[in-house]
Amino acid sequence: MAAFTNYTPGPSQLYFTVSDHLKSAIKNNILSLSHRSKAFEAIVEKAVRELKHLLQLPENYTVVFTSSATEIWERSIENLVEEKSIHYVNGSFSARYAEIAAQLQKHVSLIQVEEGKGFELPESIHPHAEFVAITHNETSTGVSWPIEDLNKLRASYPNALIMIDAVSSLPYPDFNYDVIDGVFFSVQKAFGLPPGLGVWCVNQKCLAKANDLQKKKINIGTYHNLPTLHSFAVKNQTPETPNTLGIYLLGQVAEDFNRRTIHTIRKETEYKAAILYQLLDQHPILKPFVEKKEHRSKTVIVAQCGEVTQSVNQFLQQHGIMPGDGYGKNKTQQLRFANFPAHSKEQFEWLVDTLDKFKG
Amino acid sequence: MAAFTNYTPGPSQLYFTVSDHLKSAIKNNILSLSHRSKAFEAIVEKAVRELKHLLQLPENYTVVFTSSATEIWERSIENLVEEKSIHYVNGSFSARYAEIAAQLQKHVSLIQVEEGKGFELPESIHPHAEFVAITHNETSTGVSWPIEDLNKLRASYPNALIMIDAVSSLPYPDFNYDVIDGVFFSVQKAFGLPPGLGVWCVNQKCLAKANDLQKKKINIGTYHNLPTLHSFAVKNQTPETPNTLGIYLLGQVAEDFNRRTIHTIRKETEYKAAILYQLLDQHPILKPFVEKKEHRSKTVIVAQCGEVTQSVNQFLQQHGIMPGDGYGKNKTQQLRFANFPAHSKEQFEWLVDTLDKFKG
Repeated sequence: MAAFTNYTPGPSQLYFTVSDHLKSAIKNNILSLSHRSKAFEAIVEKAVRELKHLLQLPENYTVVFTSSATEIWERSIENLVEEKSIHYVNGSFSARYAEIAAQLQKHVSLIQVEEGKGFELPESIHPHAEFVAITHNETSTGVSWPIEDLNKLRASYPNALIMIDAVSSLPYPDFNYDVIDGVFFSVQKAFGLPPGLGVWCVNQKCLAKANDLQKKKINIGTYHNLPTLHSFAVKNQTPETPNTLGIYLLGQVAEDFNRRTIHTIRKETEYKAAILYQLLDQHPILKPFVEKKEHRSKTVIVAQCGEVTQSVNQFLQQHGIMPGDGYGKNKTQQLRFANFPAHSKEQFEWLVDTLDKFKG
Repeated sequence: MAAFTNYTPGPSQLYFTVSDHLKSAIKNNILSLSHRSKAFEAIVEKAVRELKHLLQLPENYTVVFTSSATEIWERSIENLVEEKSIHYVNGSFSARYAEIAAQLQKHVSLIQVEEGKGFELPESIHPHAEFVAITHNETSTGVSWPIEDLNKLRASYPNALIMIDAVSSLPYPDFNYDVIDGVFFSVQKAFGLPPGLGVWCVNQKCLAKANDLQKKKINIGTYHNLPTLHSFAVKNQTPETPNTLGIYLLGQVAEDFNRRTIHTIRKETEYKAAILYQLLDQHPILKPFVEKKEHRSKTVIVAQCGEVTQSVNQFLQQHGIMPGDGYGKNKTQQLRFANFPAHSKEQFEWLVDTLDKFKG
């Protein structure tokens, strides 16, 4: 295993500094630290500070920690939807977010397009829409929302909370946080960390909404409802004994990313995506699954391989490359390639050169 | 920090094998493993197998993973209580379990005694009781339920689900799993592991109840409701990308405990508790907080230190011993000492000898 570069979209390749950070965590007794100690608060403070800097989050955003992005699907619906949520669905993960809303007995409206496709912007204005759930990067199909389109959504939903699932795209996208209300991700994807931590960034409107639902005696959950999460976050604490190691590693890697600068990370992500899409566009056998260029994800790149899927997979593995399988029903037809900060330019060039050598 | 033995009741001293297991986790790429791989399933299978052997869990029990025991407070109420839960409360943690039930808008009945006291068994029979929440070991005060008393509860609550919070006692207690319906704990206490994982063992009656509530359209949560957790557990999977490292380490340490045998762990726990209580009973200044011997916890031992609390704390730290503070309002009056498998007999003898030397 160790000889392979892991391109699965999550858990993915660890960022190269993680094992050193883990060793210092052991050495500095981070693993048995009391979650009510000053040292713990310093770890949370650093993780939040580095993350806010990295994502360029505005001051009015709060960062809270959950155990997974899956948990944030549930908590966001529970805390922010009184009656109705609108879901843009174009794959398995956006569909699952909508299913969770339905399980929580909300009225769910789907705006659905087929897999591999992105969305057209709504032409009408929906002043009464309550909550809009957007999956920025559909990990199952490699379709992503262009930032310009996200920025135009506010005009159609002037009064809704707009929540962005950015699980497999952050820290790459340059969101305008002033026209959305929250984003979330899990650390085992583009942050190159071991799994077990979800990160949820919300603005004051989200907090006000959760408080409002609580006053109306609507069930918003208990220890991880938004008002409780927020009341601990302002003290750099968490309600429960959390995955302290996960928070520590996030702070260390976000600091590493900041040293490299978000600008460099974005430019490298774009370079790596460009050379892989260029190869796929020109390849005699393989092609990009997502046809429309503006909907092609920069961070999860899906290759339509058809009947050679298994042989290209084996060919890549012979060259030290572990691709991600296609998702669900596409498992035998597609391969997915994560393009995260953990994947170096040199590794991507090797991937592209290797795919170029594949002749079926 | 590294020179201290950590007696705080959780996160506590790491079990001595943990740092080696962590290093092998890094080496074997456990940290970036796909949670839908065969290797992941083998990790879950091993953790559950070793744990079932260690706890001597009957075959009809299912083991599921959450992110914390706090989460299990919420999930157990959500999944197992339709209308009413009964809570035995004698400290901060048993009180918090009851608060969570109230927040979830259940009708909550408290059977409450003051801090430092245990419970008398109910004399009457409550055939209509739905759910009884027991905190086996009240971490805030060092009061524990004698196993014989737990075993008699079924007679009073013949039809209720009896759920045991064993957060700071397992693997020590020798529960009779046939007369209760579930237990849970978090790994950062007596298992000596880094925090970020809750473990919930439930029998078939719990699963049937959750299914029943779901049929009645009662909200039992989504990705972590009991039917969903169970449907993944039978495949050695988890619904979400979990704290894989936590599950891996649990399996490794449960195996280490099994090699040492649960019999040895219990005997050593009893020996260490006996020498510390004996010292406290005979000490000129300090005394055990819990007066009644049968209610004294073997795993969290609380010393009433009164006005010398700060000086005994400093004295211990000068001797390489980090005690736990008293909990909440007892912070300036008490010290707590975890007695977990990570604390060796020699370390406990050193603790006892040091306390013996303290003359105020």
